[in-house]
Amino acid sequence: MATAELIKHVAKRIAITKETGNQIVVIVSAMGDTTDELINLASRVSRNPSSRELDVLLSTGEIVSSTLLTLALHDMGYKAISLSGAQAGIKTDAVYSRARILNVDSKRVVKELERGNIVIVAGFQGVTQEMDVTTLGRGGSDTTAVALAASLNAEVCQIYTDVEGVYTADPRVVLEARRLPRISYEEMLEMAIYGAKVIHPRAVELGELFKIPIFVASSFTDKPGTLIYGEAAMELINKVKSVTYDLDVAKITIIGVPDRPGIAAAIFGALAENGISVDTIVQNASIQNITDLTFTINRGILPQAMEVVAPICELIKAKDCIGDSQLGKVSIVGTGMQNTPGYASRMFSALAERGINIQLITTSDIRITCIIAEDRIEDAVRALHQTFELEIE
Amino acid sequence: MATAELIKHVAKRIAITKETGNQIVVIVSAMGDTTDELINLASRVSRNPSSRELDVLLSTGEIVSSTLLTLALHDMGYKAISLSGAQAGIKTDAVYSRARILNVDSKRVVKELERGNIVIVAGFQGVTQEMDVTTLGRGGSDTTAVALAASLNAEVCQIYTDVEGVYTADPRVVLEARRLPRISYEEMLEMAIYGAKVIHPRAVELGELFKIPIFVASSFTDKPGTLIYGEAAMELINKVKSVTYDLDVAKITIIGVPDRPGIAAAIFGALAENGISVDTIVQNASIQNITDLTFTINRGILPQAMEVVAPICELIKAKDCIGDSQLGKVSIVGTGMQNTPGYASRMFSALAERGINIQLITTSDIRITCIIAEDRIEDAVRALHQTFELEIE
Repeated sequence: MATAELIKHVAKRIAITKETGNQIVVIVSAMGDTTDELINLASRVSRNPSSRELDVLLSTGEIVSSTLLTLALHDMGYKAISLSGAQAGIKTDAVYSRARILNVDSKRVVKELERGNIVIVAGFQGVTQEMDVTTLGRGGSDTTAVALAASLNAEVCQIYTDVEGVYTADPRVVLEARRLPRISYEEMLEMAIYGAKVIHPRAVELGELFKIPIFVASSFTDKPGTLIYGEAAMELINKVKSVTYDLDVAKITIIGVPDRPGIAAAIFGALAENGISVDTIVQNASIQNITDLTFTINRGILPQAMEVVAPICELIKAKDCIGDSQLGKVSIVGTGMQNTPGYASRMFSALAERGINIQLITTSDIRITCIIAEDRIEDAVRALHQTFELEIE
Repeated sequence: MATAELIKHVAKRIAITKETGNQIVVIVSAMGDTTDELINLASRVSRNPSSRELDVLLSTGEIVSSTLLTLALHDMGYKAISLSGAQAGIKTDAVYSRARILNVDSKRVVKELERGNIVIVAGFQGVTQEMDVTTLGRGGSDTTAVALAASLNAEVCQIYTDVEGVYTADPRVVLEARRLPRISYEEMLEMAIYGAKVIHPRAVELGELFKIPIFVASSFTDKPGTLIYGEAAMELINKVKSVTYDLDVAKITIIGVPDRPGIAAAIFGALAENGISVDTIVQNASIQNITDLTFTINRGILPQAMEVVAPICELIKAKDCIGDSQLGKVSIVGTGMQNTPGYASRMFSALAERGINIQLITTSDIRITCIIAEDRIEDAVRALHQTFELEIE
């Protein structure tokens, strides 16, 4: 949400849904730049703000939105009440700044629904057993929404965001990209993990687990959106559903690693101890007991990761250790790919035809991902969208 | 508090107090214009914001201050933790926007003190039995501070504000005004009710009830301040302590009221039903069963009060009903005045000598108040300060 006007717009949309006779619980995020402004304030009084205090500070952003939306609904003549994450019973662990929801005690929400209220819940936040405020980290508001929907046995969880739904590719990159009216949890999960920013994977996983249909549409327009739900429809099988990309990729290659037990454990153990999560790991076939080891990480933590890895490389007498942050991931996702040969080779050919070099490949049942140079990502997305004819319904 | 710099300044002062070896609980109010900005936001989405939602919205202001002050203390190497009013156990009734504290459950505060933390509590807020956030209205942060001090058996409650302590008169009006190093609860209470803005009467009453010494000083300077405590000291008896004034005064006079039972009840009953509190009431001696009735109210509610009173005047066949908002109150306060004649006459003479007409007089054991024309208030304050030699210690 950006301004008072947007709040009124959202209130109107809620009112329309209310008029259909449904009980409604709304989960809000903070308005516009609120979160950044609060972080800026914190940085002006502290060089290294504690995450416990930062969580309390940031949680006020969603509380402000929730009260303003409630007031806007009152002004339109609707009964409504705002609840904080704590009041809505969002119980989390005590891992500040990226807490996980342990359970939802929706007693208070149910009571307010029974009183005839539209219930407006501050998203992105919960409360520990000691009643301390936590925030849920990335995807926190989406996750709150799906978790509450699950605990209330809601018919559907609608997520209004800054995009108009799930597309066959990023419409800013591929002009012909087409909105998908529906997509399965599994496909959405792969797409979300591999770069689609529409909805956070945590929320999709939770939706799948509790069988809550998730509808994603724009906050700003009244266009139709995308429904994320159970099984992929029969008629959509045997088809790539979407091309996604992600620029938050860096790669570290350790050259000339002695191929003996314990080496990988030493490297990845040290990274884990330093809180660095590793994405893809590839180890080449060993030649004369010497191998190369490559892995990818988020781009922002490359310098830290190099600091952790360098001394180990020296210790194990590896030949060299090279970091590269100019990379991107491009993926094709679709349930149709499982048990159907040919998708991988068509993908690789399409990239080769355009002179795009593939550095790493990873796959799942319903996804193929290539890591390529960052500056070729957009070309690759367009090429793949065309190759798999995603502009055609 | 106004800015990040002020937060750091306050953190430094707290650190100095901490270094004396004390356990400290700090109650904060919202920064600068935060409260006004939040009210403005609410008014942009609602013509008549509900007080329940407004309380939740406004409570975020103090939460933001509490976390920022905590972060500033961390940055200086101190252990500290922020608590909301709810977490600090400030239990109130459910009268939103001006809730009263019912009790304080300071378990969590005690626990955090035992953990070695400086505890920073968001003031001005509490929580109902249903765990809904309330705000305490005027004087709410001072009242939170004294209530917590009482529940913790604190040695002293220090209030840092925008003035340097309690003065013999407003230093902006009387150049010779002198800071009082100490003053009794009783005197402070009369002064606060009769115009001194230093501290809210609710907080003083609570301090007196629980025998918590209250120290008032400036947030901005390191000047000495004023201690509000138990009994007036022996050597200060027999002296006017301070001159106060208040411009928030309006008067309604009903002329020619038939002097029979039930008339006053009809008028003041109707005012009470409309939520209008009446301050001073004066009824002149009855002549031929006809009397005049005068009472004072806060200036802002004069139009409403006139609307309530006018139809009753017609009903009881009063001659006329006149409202006047150009008034002020000037008071002298001091324990020394009780049982000592001459103060009233000296006060009236001092005003008469300067041609200041007295419209109404009210007194208590330790206070004499005159209601006079608003534009003579400053003259009156200066005259009385001089007459009672308050510039001399």
